[in-house]
Amino acid sequence: MESSEHPTPRKDMLCIIKIGGNVIDNASSLQEFLREFASLPSKKILVHGGGKIATSIGDKIGIASQYTNGRRITDTATIDLVTMVYGGLVNKKIVAGLQALRCNAIGLTGADANALPAVKRPVQTIDFGWVGDVTASAIDPSTWQRFLDNQLVPVVAPLTHDLQGHMLNTNADTIASVLAVALSKVYQVKLVYCFEKNGVLTDVNDGQTLINELTVAAYQQLQESDRLFAGILPKIDNSFAAVHAGVSSVVIGNSANLSALVLGESGTKIIA
Amino acid sequence: MESSEHPTPRKDMLCIIKIGGNVIDNASSLQEFLREFASLPSKKILVHGGGKIATSIGDKIGIASQYTNGRRITDTATIDLVTMVYGGLVNKKIVAGLQALRCNAIGLTGADANALPAVKRPVQTIDFGWVGDVTASAIDPSTWQRFLDNQLVPVVAPLTHDLQGHMLNTNADTIASVLAVALSKVYQVKLVYCFEKNGVLTDVNDGQTLINELTVAAYQQLQESDRLFAGILPKIDNSFAAVHAGVSSVVIGNSANLSALVLGESGTKIIA
Repeated sequence: MESSEHPTPRKDMLCIIKIGGNVIDNASSLQEFLREFASLPSKKILVHGGGKIATSIGDKIGIASQYTNGRRITDTATIDLVTMVYGGLVNKKIVAGLQALRCNAIGLTGADANALPAVKRPVQTIDFGWVGDVTASAIDPSTWQRFLDNQLVPVVAPLTHDLQGHMLNTNADTIASVLAVALSKVYQVKLVYCFEKNGVLTDVNDGQTLINELTVAAYQQLQESDRLFAGILPKIDNSFAAVHAGVSSVVIGNSANLSALVLGESGTKIIA
Repeated sequence: MESSEHPTPRKDMLCIIKIGGNVIDNASSLQEFLREFASLPSKKILVHGGGKIATSIGDKIGIASQYTNGRRITDTATIDLVTMVYGGLVNKKIVAGLQALRCNAIGLTGADANALPAVKRPVQTIDFGWVGDVTASAIDPSTWQRFLDNQLVPVVAPLTHDLQGHMLNTNADTIASVLAVALSKVYQVKLVYCFEKNGVLTDVNDGQTLINELTVAAYQQLQESDRLFAGILPKIDNSFAAVHAGVSSVVIGNSANLSALVLGESGTKIIA
């Protein structure tokens, strides 16, 4: 029982916003999104995906995407490519765009300040190559608190490192979820997945089929009846992982409605 | 006159080390350099150049270097290229390498945390394109102090920004000099330019022709008698600019001798 003389101090609010590649690939929707993001009043972190630009630059350099059993493999040429494109081009475009809006952004990969230490995925049936698995327990919240307490806004590329000198490719949705869990020890975290759809839809081509609230039971029913677009399943799985591990709220919705998503007035709320 | 009761507090030592492209292009010399850099006991910042890799990747993507009157121009394709290669690939390779040595590096371009605000070079006879001019007075030392006080080691790519959403290409030697001047307000700054030569040589092909100490008068004489390799002149100019603006010491020398350079036991000392 808490003593009334020593109430648990109320944690600061922290918004962790993930934006996907389709928003990044479109200059005007990115600009509109950054304007809304910059105006969010709370502490905040932006996690970004890659976008199609890595593939188009890879094609020009002659780095084709490698697959084994349908799973994408990150070979040495590919990790260099995504380090350039995600960690350099995409990340700095966002950081410079936010600085122009007087939002004091700082671009980070997981190697920078050892913000996201990871483990190279062990080879089992498939060798995924330079892919990193991150866990909340390995992340030091104080590293992130120092940035946030200094009014800096981390902009996180989907890259981690193995502490042995290698960059690793890590899914941005997973980074957002794991980081939200790690930081929920010290903040009241709202996690928002933004993409080009209105949220979780029962008909992926009809924005009117939005599910406002999704429970585990409803999610299982929808999967059994095969009513969800396969591409959204990892995002939902990452969302449930977050709400089940202490993240205050998780919403999936349209990047064009960021402020409403943060207020819980748009998109699909994930219910623990 | 200073009061004996309130002596001026001694400033902390800060080493700002610049490494050039030839060191970066060679994996084993880079590794050896990073090992020495990581072991330097003082607060420190690493500024890196680009290396030839930007040109080779540019060739593959079909971005040729543009020149006007023999001066290199940074067009839109080129600023994207160098943002990828310098800000992504090269910067993160160094950061991950230092993290592996348990040196808590953080990669920065000038856009990150608004660390190096710059002005796009005004068009006079030549339009240099997306090139940024930096000045010491525009740099906020407290931005850098916060990193250094948190035991972080900034690793700086040769990129700045215009605060209007654009990345800018800026010479790494100039960044090192200007940053050293800005931070000499709050630190006792040692600036070390490292490259593949032993220092300022009167015969660029003979490492035995090293000048141990270079004064302005000696520099003028050497220029008049045309005894210096043209490529080193901007580095020397940046060095004199630094020592004349409050930087404690400036040394130019071989990256293989970093510890000795920092101790003033190797290379060419620039004398104010």
